[in-house]
Amino acid sequence: MKKINGGVCAPKGYKAGGICCGIKASSKKRDLALIYSEKLAVARAMYTTNKVRAASIIVTEEHLAGGELRALIVNSGNANACTGEAGIAAARRMCDLAADLFAISPRQVAVASTGVIGVPLNMAVIEGGMEALGNSLRADEAGHAAALEAIMTTDTRKKEASIEIEIDGIPVRLGAMIKGAGMIHPNMATMLGFITTDAAIEGDALEASLRRAVGRSFNRVTVDGDTSTNDVVIIMANGEAANKSISLGSPSFQIFAQALEDLCIDLAKALARDGEGATKLVTVTVSGAQDEKTAETLAMSVASSSLVKAACFGADANWGRILCAMGYSGAGFEPAQVDVAFAGSGEEVLVCRGGASIPFSEPDAKRILQSEELEIRIQAGAGAGAATVWGCDLTYDYVKINGDYRS
Amino acid sequence: MKKINGGVCAPKGYKAGGICCGIKASSKKRDLALIYSEKLAVARAMYTTNKVRAASIIVTEEHLAGGELRALIVNSGNANACTGEAGIAAARRMCDLAADLFAISPRQVAVASTGVIGVPLNMAVIEGGMEALGNSLRADEAGHAAALEAIMTTDTRKKEASIEIEIDGIPVRLGAMIKGAGMIHPNMATMLGFITTDAAIEGDALEASLRRAVGRSFNRVTVDGDTSTNDVVIIMANGEAANKSISLGSPSFQIFAQALEDLCIDLAKALARDGEGATKLVTVTVSGAQDEKTAETLAMSVASSSLVKAACFGADANWGRILCAMGYSGAGFEPAQVDVAFAGSGEEVLVCRGGASIPFSEPDAKRILQSEELEIRIQAGAGAGAATVWGCDLTYDYVKINGDYRS
Repeated sequence: MKKINGGVCAPKGYKAGGICCGIKASSKKRDLALIYSEKLAVARAMYTTNKVRAASIIVTEEHLAGGELRALIVNSGNANACTGEAGIAAARRMCDLAADLFAISPRQVAVASTGVIGVPLNMAVIEGGMEALGNSLRADEAGHAAALEAIMTTDTRKKEASIEIEIDGIPVRLGAMIKGAGMIHPNMATMLGFITTDAAIEGDALEASLRRAVGRSFNRVTVDGDTSTNDVVIIMANGEAANKSISLGSPSFQIFAQALEDLCIDLAKALARDGEGATKLVTVTVSGAQDEKTAETLAMSVASSSLVKAACFGADANWGRILCAMGYSGAGFEPAQVDVAFAGSGEEVLVCRGGASIPFSEPDAKRILQSEELEIRIQAGAGAGAATVWGCDLTYDYVKINGDYRS
Repeated sequence: MKKINGGVCAPKGYKAGGICCGIKASSKKRDLALIYSEKLAVARAMYTTNKVRAASIIVTEEHLAGGELRALIVNSGNANACTGEAGIAAARRMCDLAADLFAISPRQVAVASTGVIGVPLNMAVIEGGMEALGNSLRADEAGHAAALEAIMTTDTRKKEASIEIEIDGIPVRLGAMIKGAGMIHPNMATMLGFITTDAAIEGDALEASLRRAVGRSFNRVTVDGDTSTNDVVIIMANGEAANKSISLGSPSFQIFAQALEDLCIDLAKALARDGEGATKLVTVTVSGAQDEKTAETLAMSVASSSLVKAACFGADANWGRILCAMGYSGAGFEPAQVDVAFAGSGEEVLVCRGGASIPFSEPDAKRILQSEELEIRIQAGAGAGAATVWGCDLTYDYVKINGDYRS
């Protein structure tokens, strides 16, 4: 597996573009994106578990019942959620408009939205922008960079990646772009994720690899515990690499699934690092739990605790809050068997052994906790279950960003 | 029911006191409290649901197996949690020391602790302070005021109340003091609550009334979603009012239980208002849900959402976050049936009807959201289930207080 350039345009046969059509009325930022596959692609998606679902989620799920896509249209600046029947009609219209650009069926188009909830989407500016959006499509850097900008809201960093692997001796590429900075919690963050690949792959194999990858990456990120109405991760596979089609359970499936998981974990870490107001990436690893699910529950509870997050911000080795968060997680473990260490900048300091206090150097702990990439390592017992999750610290800026997001 | 003065000393036969013994080494603040009943009292308690339990919780539960108490000893500045066997021994020793003061059995003494987790309790300063603690006992204002000060940590307000009711024509009093400001979430907050009454009441009736009252008050408060290792609410009933003993299900039970619930709700609201860094009390009411439990789950999810709390701080009428938080609560409701209004300072503004946007005056909403007592009113459907919960806004100061609590 090697990293390559090109983001979602790295795999063969994809183009992307993005424009500023005016949804973000107060800024000149791009707000409308398109990703296009020259050939019909097998496609799968995972959606928010929130009971309140944006119009884009409802329409995309409907279209993806067919399991195939040619294009994705995405707007930022407005979530088109809690907008009633007019919102559904707007989401459908976005698919129609994109379909018209390429003379394809609207059912081969998926739609995603992100931004403020409960405000009607301004379809006039989207309609007015469609020609420019079509003209912005490129297979090169200009294309995916513009699309990536157009899906961002409070993101401060661009989050994209692309890799190349070999399947039966044939090079296959995967590319992805994601957005998300706040309202980030399983399942999936206010997060949009678009993944392209030129692999030839069966639908069920694509589905299984996506579920596994998302389960171990985006679903293990927490910024603020709020699961959005708009989360979606969509993958398209157009077969342009001309490899022998990957089937579920085959050796090539393992290679593809692992590559997809690695790609998603890279981006999940970028998501946590870019958490609203965050100054540091906080990785929480739990091992020795009775099983992987238990380890994940314990780790997520620690990474989600406001008190732990505030202590990370303040570089305060307040490990009691870590045990406390494990204790209310609902997961089974024996407090008297827990060890806790902080790690960062190549150093580690053990602060709790057997669930109780041990002497440690406060200056060492402080220095480690000041790392921009901080790890909380928890040994929860003698079991075989392990999991890693990603979060960030809770800062003044989180409050500032979210205290007045709409204005 | 009328409000009276006296806090936990308002009921007949109780004394309280508090001193600075030196647990809070860096300050001159009181840190050791005692509440004493001259007669043996029927007693019950509710404890944290955290799997990691402080030594004080373990020892108090053991002692309360007998169902009777004479005294409570409480320290602040150190939670005596995650302190292993030495912590258990220290908690037992605190009960022994209090028992020695009155020549009673240690099993008639309950112990509670609050403060930093994972640091060994300094028993030497507690032993050294016991004589002064005994001498500080008073039945008057000086007594309960000193005890109340001694149980506080980051609390900025004193939270106590006392009331008088009539049972069969005989006046009966209830008094309470609580502490808690952060790490506050069901079940029960990092919250210590001590309730006294001179009612004569059967043990099972006392238990039932405590469960009902805590369930509708302290268990409906959220500050930061962290459930502490040390939470406990203890009630003592010493029978000094000489009423006919209250039995479960009797008319006098209803009067007593309602009074206890009202007392606890008053203090629960004070707890939320004093949330760490909070600038406002946020009351969330849900009605029209299918049942009370569903209404409570929906309301707690809204009151716990970091995004909703930050919007309350910023006086931003971002009601989409409210629907979003309802949506990920796991509770059943129909998004298209939800109405949301903000209320405060005697005004109300409807911002969402039938799950969708309606026009409203932003200046009106802003003004209402700036109220120090803000209410989010949610109509979740046509059911009969209703619940009210209390929370607060998320502010810069929450982050500041918790970024460096230990130092």
